[in-house]
Amino acid sequence: MQVSSQLIQDAVNAFASLPGIGKKSALRLVLYLVKQPTDKTENFTNALVNMRQRIKICRRCNNISDNDLCSICSDMRRDQVTVMVVESIRDVMAIEETQQYKGVYHVLGGVISPIEGIGPNDIQVMSLIERVKSGEVKEIIMAISPTIEGETTIFYLSRQLQIYPVTISTLARGISFGSELEYADETTLGRSIAQRVPYKTGDE
Amino acid sequence: MQVSSQLIQDAVNAFASLPGIGKKSALRLVLYLVKQPTDKTENFTNALVNMRQRIKICRRCNNISDNDLCSICSDMRRDQVTVMVVESIRDVMAIEETQQYKGVYHVLGGVISPIEGIGPNDIQVMSLIERVKSGEVKEIIMAISPTIEGETTIFYLSRQLQIYPVTISTLARGISFGSELEYADETTLGRSIAQRVPYKTGDE
Repeated sequence: MQVSSQLIQDAVNAFASLPGIGKKSALRLVLYLVKQPTDKTENFTNALVNMRQRIKICRRCNNISDNDLCSICSDMRRDQVTVMVVESIRDVMAIEETQQYKGVYHVLGGVISPIEGIGPNDIQVMSLIERVKSGEVKEIIMAISPTIEGETTIFYLSRQLQIYPVTISTLARGISFGSELEYADETTLGRSIAQRVPYKTGDE
Repeated sequence: MQVSSQLIQDAVNAFASLPGIGKKSALRLVLYLVKQPTDKTENFTNALVNMRQRIKICRRCNNISDNDLCSICSDMRRDQVTVMVVESIRDVMAIEETQQYKGVYHVLGGVISPIEGIGPNDIQVMSLIERVKSGEVKEIIMAISPTIEGETTIFYLSRQLQIYPVTISTLARGISFGSELEYADETTLGRSIAQRVPYKTGDE
């Protein structure tokens, strides 16, 4: 649609720069804000700016956090010696949703992918090894999507960690190969945490 | 999904308060902003706040405008004595898209709807009558969605305006009854402007 106002055009472009929002949806959102009192726009944008400026990354597990240490790492009722290794923040949320897990996490921020040029140094591998080396970890649960890249990452991490006195397990393969972890239904995801199995590298 | 961060939760709620954005989409948008540099969020929110604080309503036609008079009303190459009466700003945009119309507009900001309790005083009827009364208007084109409320509005306006020396027409009924004007395809909409017909109230 043609927009005669430059202010509106700029606001439409701003919304349309977000993933999954097209020009038509962007225009609808902008016209909605125009109809509402100015307060509405200010409250909306303040929540976003406030979030973006104050949000932190947990210094222990790399989860998003309001403080230096996230609410999971600082919760002493949780099992602090069991660490679930996940790819992303969204995976932490999906697993918390199952209410089946009472340990802590380690967010890698990606998986090893030679095709995309992502190596072990591009994700949070060293910080995981440091956590294990410090002796604070007794069990590692690999909760990584069972894709080729995910399996490669699990294999790599297990090799790196096998010299330490730590039990390594993976989620039970209730999750179908090639699927994305965050879209698994709660039952499947919950059961796969309960039925996790020891991981074998194949050269033992 | 459970979100352990209050900052994230507030930002998700902010996005989800917009029409057509659910909690899951909102979370996706927030996590996208978290991954981008802080600048991204600031540029996005600045465009919205700037738009909302500076946007004006054209004092002549009620269209959205960067100035007191919108770019259409202040464009002297346009036919300033032909006024197209529309329901909303989006209708102006849809008609401008056809590039078939070179006159100006009058945005009502709604239609008369006894069921929803919207009467002539709740929409921009008086300002339209004032424009006609001042003698600046020679032709009125009723470009209102042909719904029951739209037809009622056209009927009411025509009755109010018939004492003035002004030609009144409606868009050709190429648009099917009961449909929304803004969703009509460009060809249909363009043709219906070209083939507009004199309006009869039935008591002439």
